[in-house]
Amino acid sequence: MAGPEREPPAVFAKTAHNRIRRVFEYARYERAEVYRILDAGFVCHIGYSIDRQPYATPTAYWRQGDRVYWHGSSASRMIRALAGGAPLCFTVALFDGLVLARSGFQTSVNYRSVMAFGSAEKVEGRDAKLAALEAMMERLVPGRWDELRPATEQELKATTVLSMALDEAVAKVSEGPPDDAAADCALDIWAGVVPVRLATGAPEDDPKLKPGLAAPAYLDKIRLD
Amino acid sequence: MAGPEREPPAVFAKTAHNRIRRVFEYARYERAEVYRILDAGFVCHIGYSIDRQPYATPTAYWRQGDRVYWHGSSASRMIRALAGGAPLCFTVALFDGLVLARSGFQTSVNYRSVMAFGSAEKVEGRDAKLAALEAMMERLVPGRWDELRPATEQELKATTVLSMALDEAVAKVSEGPPDDAAADCALDIWAGVVPVRLATGAPEDDPKLKPGLAAPAYLDKIRLD
Repeated sequence: MAGPEREPPAVFAKTAHNRIRRVFEYARYERAEVYRILDAGFVCHIGYSIDRQPYATPTAYWRQGDRVYWHGSSASRMIRALAGGAPLCFTVALFDGLVLARSGFQTSVNYRSVMAFGSAEKVEGRDAKLAALEAMMERLVPGRWDELRPATEQELKATTVLSMALDEAVAKVSEGPPDDAAADCALDIWAGVVPVRLATGAPEDDPKLKPGLAAPAYLDKIRLD
Repeated sequence: MAGPEREPPAVFAKTAHNRIRRVFEYARYERAEVYRILDAGFVCHIGYSIDRQPYATPTAYWRQGDRVYWHGSSASRMIRALAGGAPLCFTVALFDGLVLARSGFQTSVNYRSVMAFGSAEKVEGRDAKLAALEAMMERLVPGRWDELRPATEQELKATTVLSMALDEAVAKVSEGPPDDAAADCALDIWAGVVPVRLATGAPEDDPKLKPGLAAPAYLDKIRLD
C-alpha cells in the first residue's frame, strides 16, 4: 500500500541514527542511490528487540515507492512484535568483492548497503494485501504472478504484510581497488579484488511436476544481486 | 582467543531465545550443523541496541572452536557498544534458492541460517589479536597471511577483535522442492527451484600492482558460499 501522497526529499536528512560517523566517504544520502541498492537486493535483515533481547532476522523484502515491504506468518513473533510499532533497523547488504590489499589492515570487502530506521505498519485490507504480494512476486520472478493459483482467504489471513516508510535512511558504498599506501604498493605482494556476486543456476523441476511442463522463459528475468 | 577449556554440549539446549516455535521442522540444534553453516558463510548481521534503537549491522566473521569472531575499528560505535557487553544476536543467513511453488503462499526461499545469542568479549593482548586476525585471513583467503606486510602496532591498536561463545544457538535449514498440496500439483503451472549461490569471479589486479606480479594460486581456494 502506498504511503500518503507527498514528495519525499531527494536527500535524506542526517539524524542521530543514519549519520555515518567514520568512513563518511562511503556514505550516500541520496534517495535515488538508496533505492538503487534496495531494488538490487532481495533479502534484508531486520534489527528489533523483544523483551530487551535484540534480534537480527533475515527476510525477503521489496520496495514500492517510498516504502519497503516484507511479509511473514501472522503467527510469527517477529511479525507480531513489529506490527505493534516497535522501533526497527532495516538493513540490506550486497557483497561485491573481496578487496585483497597488501596488509591485513587494508584488506576489506566491497559492498553496497542500506540502513533505514523507523517502525512498521500492517498493510490492511484484502486488496491492498494482494497488491503488495503481487508486487513482491513481480520483484522476485517478474511475470509469474498471473500464472499462480490464486490465494485463498485462509492463506491471506495467515499472511501479514508489513511496510515501513523510508524517512530515515542512508546507503554506504565501498568499491574499487585496495587503498594501499605507496610504500606498500612497492612490495612484491599481489593485490586486487576478487569479485563476488549472487548467481542463479539452471531451474530444477519439482519432482511432482505435471509431465510436459517446461520451465517458463520469465525465469531468465530473475535479478537478485 | 579460545574460551576456557571445556567440552561444549553436542546439542544446544532450547531457551526462550533460540527455540524455534513455528517451522520447527527446519530447526537444527546440533552443534555440528551450526558449525557447518557458520563455516560456509563469511558475513553475519549483528543485532544490538544503542539507546534503545535497534541496529542490524553486517560484518565479516569467522569461527574458531566454540566461538565466533568479528573485528572492526576501535572507534566504531558498534564495536564500542558490543565490547561493553551489550546483549546481541549474531545471525548468518545463506541463500540457496528460490522455491517457486504453484501458489504465492507456498513460494519461499531455501536457506541455511544460524542465530546465536549472548554478548561479546574483546580479544586482549597483541599475540591473541594477531592470531585471531590470522585465523580470519585463513578463513577468507587461505594461504595469504604469511605474504602480507605485517601489521604495525598502530594498526593493531586501531583494530578491535570481538568474540562470542556459542552457548545459545540454533540453525534453520529450508531445502528441497516446493511443498504444494496434491491438488495444486495437478495444475498446469511449472514449479521448481531456481538455485542461488555466491559466486566468485576472476581476480582483478590492483591498478597500482607492481609489474610482473601474477594473481596467486591460493585465490582458487576461496569459498564464501
